[in-house]
Amino acid sequence: MDIKSKALEFHEGGKLEISSRVKFENQEDLGMIYTPGMAYVSDEIAKDKSLVEKYTMKSNSVAIVSDGTAILGFGNIGPEAGLPVMEGKALVFKKLAGINGFPLCIKSSTPEEVVQFCKMIEPTFGAIQLEDIKAPECFDIEKQLKEVLNIPVLHDDQHGTAVVVLAGIVNALKVTGKKIEDCKIIVNGSGAAGIAISKILVDYGATNLTVFDSKSAVSKSRQDLNKYKQELLEITNPNNYEGGLKENLKDADIFIGVSVANLLDAEDIQNMNEKAIVFALANPVPEIGYNEAKEAGAAVVATGRADYPNQVNNVLAFPGLFKGILEAGKKVFLQEDLIKAAENLAGFIEEPSEDRVIPLAFEEGVTEVVAKAIRES
Amino acid sequence: MDIKSKALEFHEGGKLEISSRVKFENQEDLGMIYTPGMAYVSDEIAKDKSLVEKYTMKSNSVAIVSDGTAILGFGNIGPEAGLPVMEGKALVFKKLAGINGFPLCIKSSTPEEVVQFCKMIEPTFGAIQLEDIKAPECFDIEKQLKEVLNIPVLHDDQHGTAVVVLAGIVNALKVTGKKIEDCKIIVNGSGAAGIAISKILVDYGATNLTVFDSKSAVSKSRQDLNKYKQELLEITNPNNYEGGLKENLKDADIFIGVSVANLLDAEDIQNMNEKAIVFALANPVPEIGYNEAKEAGAAVVATGRADYPNQVNNVLAFPGLFKGILEAGKKVFLQEDLIKAAENLAGFIEEPSEDRVIPLAFEEGVTEVVAKAIRES
Repeated sequence: MDIKSKALEFHEGGKLEISSRVKFENQEDLGMIYTPGMAYVSDEIAKDKSLVEKYTMKSNSVAIVSDGTAILGFGNIGPEAGLPVMEGKALVFKKLAGINGFPLCIKSSTPEEVVQFCKMIEPTFGAIQLEDIKAPECFDIEKQLKEVLNIPVLHDDQHGTAVVVLAGIVNALKVTGKKIEDCKIIVNGSGAAGIAISKILVDYGATNLTVFDSKSAVSKSRQDLNKYKQELLEITNPNNYEGGLKENLKDADIFIGVSVANLLDAEDIQNMNEKAIVFALANPVPEIGYNEAKEAGAAVVATGRADYPNQVNNVLAFPGLFKGILEAGKKVFLQEDLIKAAENLAGFIEEPSEDRVIPLAFEEGVTEVVAKAIRES
Repeated sequence: MDIKSKALEFHEGGKLEISSRVKFENQEDLGMIYTPGMAYVSDEIAKDKSLVEKYTMKSNSVAIVSDGTAILGFGNIGPEAGLPVMEGKALVFKKLAGINGFPLCIKSSTPEEVVQFCKMIEPTFGAIQLEDIKAPECFDIEKQLKEVLNIPVLHDDQHGTAVVVLAGIVNALKVTGKKIEDCKIIVNGSGAAGIAISKILVDYGATNLTVFDSKSAVSKSRQDLNKYKQELLEITNPNNYEGGLKENLKDADIFIGVSVANLLDAEDIQNMNEKAIVFALANPVPEIGYNEAKEAGAAVVATGRADYPNQVNNVLAFPGLFKGILEAGKKVFLQEDLIKAAENLAGFIEEPSEDRVIPLAFEEGVTEVVAKAIRES
């Protein structure tokens, strides 16, 4: 059977189910689970709302909310088509962090509706993970939610990705003997991931980072920048690079692509500085293949693919990020905590090498080092 | 340990969790559950939205939606206090019908917000169960949702209760040798349950049914009736009974109470017609105790309590109702199908007796006879 047929068969009937944490076999159990047992609990919570954390699923449950506008590499294919993705994330939550993730793919026509939806479900969940919501709407949604919610919210496509990329960069710098503040960094892609990655790298110490969108460098001469790119410009492109990506790759130390498949060739890599670091993260087809980039001389190459070394995979971050914040009972993911999480994730590898700057998704202990950063910071 | 302490301890950490229906042990499994496997499925659904039924949890998942305004006997105690109840219902769904119920207790300030919420979650769920939403708002919410949703919706406090009550009445009529069209029926309570019970009894053939609210009989002389009670009046109280409940109980064949604890005494039962049928369903304390009503001469007595015979319990109906409609792929719960479900539920007991007009919640096969009515009608 080919992989597509296998995947379709595998998904029949859906991937997850609800099950009981408590004994439920007979009429007596029903009396605890249902009336009259649950009435005592409702009564207590009615008197002290904070007890919802103790006596319900809330404190260990995350709503995985998507409007289906930016699903994987497909774009705006709708909430129904997003459901297999959110089910997958829910299972990863459970497997790696013991958290109950609830897939909620919603029909929404404005960012305000997504915000309204998240406000409404706040009583039931301990945190909200925004997933696969397109830019720039995702920025406003997350910003507004941080203001109105009393539970933490994280847009995984931004910050989950940024944490894993930063972890990989930390180790890649170690392997190549470079310092972040000395590196010329080129980021291709100005959507959710590109902007969040750029911000976390600057907050980590990058001084010479330039973002490219589908037209050219995000630079002062551009008249067509939306407010998010304008904000980004305030902390990036200090040398005012202009023009296309390829010409500006010259002498770059780090390339991070989160946008276009098959963008680069060997010559582009050769134009970069020595010991080039190439994170070609377009998915499923990277900007340049792992082997091609290595053969062209790149020192460290990472992609989104599981079949090559150094896979940048969000599952390395989000289970631990949410585990940490739920266990700590904190209300906000701070950028400094996310940086600490990336450092911990990098530090998980005791001796990083060219082919191992990022842990594998299933390595025992990965979730815990990330959680620890959030919990203890 | 007393029952309250036991119930609280039992509920610590919540009662349900998300688990996997598929093998998820290693990196290879992750490749099916997550990228790249799920991408094939998303792609197929993007091309044909109806495939969401086949390849996701949707077709076997029900959203259990409550705004917390009418929780058990407590009233408007808020969504947080409703969460233990909805978790309990979710477990009952799974145990009795194999359905995944998702508790969604929401913060909402208007009926329109509840409607909006349900519209938004439609892509993820196969059906919606409205729970513990106060009257009269619940009527408008359900009505609007039936117009705008392409998935079935059922307000359990209305129709789940009505189905179980009708089942009990069908058998109580058999036991007492009475006919529904000859009975004088008194219903106390004009909220969600009282109105739905009255409607289903009239649709089943009742010709002389009168509803009482906290003031008096719902009758033509009343100037203070909301539109729901006015509608109800069109099909009830043909003899134009006025005044209080107790005086009108005289010669009644059937009393159904869904409102006030300790409302009746032995004399009230003695004033009823011979072979009186008394459904004292106020919860947890009924309008009159089971033993007291029996000793006063009632032929058949039902309550909401598990510690006496004839417990009217929604778990007899809702798992089967949703199982039937999801399996049949129907879009609407029709009143005639609900009546058939009640008849099947009554027929589950081959030889009804005074102390057995309603099956026990855990009897093998109950869910299936209810589901069959919806599926095959």
